[in-house]
Amino acid sequence: MRDADSESWLRLALVPGVGPAAMVRLLSAFGDPARVLAASPASLARLVPAKLAEAIRQGPAADELAAALAWLEVPENRLLTLADADYPPRLLEIADPPPLLYVKGRVELLAAPSIAVVGSRNATPQGLQNAEAFARELSRQGWTIASGLALGIDAAAHQGGLAGMGSTIAVVGTGLDIVYPARNHALARQIAAEGVIVSEFALGTPGRAGNFPRRNRIISGLARGVLVVEAALQSGSLITAREAAEQGREVFAIPGSIHSPVARGCHQLIKQGAKLVETAADIVDELGGGRMPLVAPRAGTVAETAAPAVDAEAAALLAALGHDPLDVETLLGRAGLTPDRGYAMLLTLELAGLVARLPGGRFQRLA
Amino acid sequence: MRDADSESWLRLALVPGVGPAAMVRLLSAFGDPARVLAASPASLARLVPAKLAEAIRQGPAADELAAALAWLEVPENRLLTLADADYPPRLLEIADPPPLLYVKGRVELLAAPSIAVVGSRNATPQGLQNAEAFARELSRQGWTIASGLALGIDAAAHQGGLAGMGSTIAVVGTGLDIVYPARNHALARQIAAEGVIVSEFALGTPGRAGNFPRRNRIISGLARGVLVVEAALQSGSLITAREAAEQGREVFAIPGSIHSPVARGCHQLIKQGAKLVETAADIVDELGGGRMPLVAPRAGTVAETAAPAVDAEAAALLAALGHDPLDVETLLGRAGLTPDRGYAMLLTLELAGLVARLPGGRFQRLA
Repeated sequence: MRDADSESWLRLALVPGVGPAAMVRLLSAFGDPARVLAASPASLARLVPAKLAEAIRQGPAADELAAALAWLEVPENRLLTLADADYPPRLLEIADPPPLLYVKGRVELLAAPSIAVVGSRNATPQGLQNAEAFARELSRQGWTIASGLALGIDAAAHQGGLAGMGSTIAVVGTGLDIVYPARNHALARQIAAEGVIVSEFALGTPGRAGNFPRRNRIISGLARGVLVVEAALQSGSLITAREAAEQGREVFAIPGSIHSPVARGCHQLIKQGAKLVETAADIVDELGGGRMPLVAPRAGTVAETAAPAVDAEAAALLAALGHDPLDVETLLGRAGLTPDRGYAMLLTLELAGLVARLPGGRFQRLA
Repeated sequence: MRDADSESWLRLALVPGVGPAAMVRLLSAFGDPARVLAASPASLARLVPAKLAEAIRQGPAADELAAALAWLEVPENRLLTLADADYPPRLLEIADPPPLLYVKGRVELLAAPSIAVVGSRNATPQGLQNAEAFARELSRQGWTIASGLALGIDAAAHQGGLAGMGSTIAVVGTGLDIVYPARNHALARQIAAEGVIVSEFALGTPGRAGNFPRRNRIISGLARGVLVVEAALQSGSLITAREAAEQGREVFAIPGSIHSPVARGCHQLIKQGAKLVETAADIVDELGGGRMPLVAPRAGTVAETAAPAVDAEAAALLAALGHDPLDVETLLGRAGLTPDRGYAMLLTLELAGLVARLPGGRFQRLA
């Protein structure tokens, strides 16, 4: 979808040397790209170096602009600018929101409640399965899964996201006309068709080391929280997690064996305050209200257990205990139990969380 | 070693019905066991039920007392009472210190800096190896390893403790003349010879469910911190950990796969505030001063890495950055680097913890 607004944003953004910082400075001063493009070199030069002011007067390379405008003619492609009502609201909260986003697919997913799922490119098979399973369950509950379309954990997370109604957002560090890495071509096509792919980089921008950290701030910026599935020490995922914390996003990490190198990054995050999670429910519980579940959340399957059933003998012991602290000799006398049997039952009840042992050998009922 | 004092403590403790609580109440009133034993039934009955007062006047069964006194004649056996100068000082800090401890072996270990290592009887092979390795390394650094002589994690922890100069303390829930479980006979003999075994229960006391929680409070009470190696949800190890926290002891837990049932207890502890540990060094770092290392601690082998060496090009970039925040364009200009190369180096330096990225694309040197 193309309009006059998109064209003037593109004209400014595609000027060689105009980065996000210069763009925001110029827009703050002039109000919109059309006014920046119409401004005199002298007034531009008060804000940016004279050379850049001159470049703005000359405008972008004609073929680059034409290519971008042609790209915009494709129905599923869209340009989102800071001035756009559909610009993702959560991105406005971060320190340096991208002025311009190239979007392919379901633009509305960018404003949906989402969780980022990231991790190592060199993941273990179990890590890949965990990423897919967490993403699938979260997506099933209506959360959109954001990730970076890298190999390994990212790809597994997107696949899990695609399996549920939450679907998935791929934030890439290249132009949207370039799929990097090439092995994710089929996945990228599926995400464009069923989810959404987004980039702040101009068409034709190749993969560059410096662009991936910028990409990561958008992944965490779009999300309510970031789950790190597997990560080595000193990996990019840890930087994403740190930045997410700085953006005020919750950070979650899946633990693993202390002998697994790709668990160490997660363990470091947990030591630094990230939440250890064992199930998707752990994440949903923490993020709590504010999401809009499309289906009722299912209870987690792993870490929760039903309240223990209590047999008649235990019920009699609980009744004998009443609701005040009681010393054990009196309790056993009341309940008519031998010490062996009574202590065994009290231990069982304590383990079930129904009674607490107090200092001095007294017990108190909890439930 | 037997003396008149020990005999009067034994005479009182062995009276049927005199538990630790009654003993402490009587000692508080009368000062020492000899005075309790000499008191009139009327004055005793002001503190305890008349039936118990009468039992105290009658004294213990002659054969039980004789057996205990005979046991005390063995050179490595010792009775420690609350009044004894050798009574473990850390046990005096807990809510209900045992009035009397039966001790076999090196009594001085009970006052040494110690760490409790506990966990599941149904441990995995990796869990057993972890327990042994952590205990061995801590013992090598001079820490005494306290545990409960159970099968599984406990036994592995004792074995690791025996391998180092810190040695090991086994706290048992039976009389010291009974080894429970029987499969630990050889280990118990070795601990009695090279470490120390201790119990608050009279000779001949068999294994009873109710006694193990009491035993556990002594394990954590003796220690500066408690390491849980593997534990199922709703297991005794979690109760020990909770009690340790209530005693003001640090709680440490080793993480594991979210698909391992015996990692779930550790994960629950970490969620509740226990420290996630990957190496023995993590524990020593946290406990910090107060221990008396017999040898210089060796650096941990797993989670630590040496400060990264910086090559000449990176050193030049750091020099160009200086010690104030700097925008990246200026920095790359100063350092004479292309954006591709410069961003890649900055990412490397950021991962190495030498620079930090600030909002707005600026960088600051950290080291």
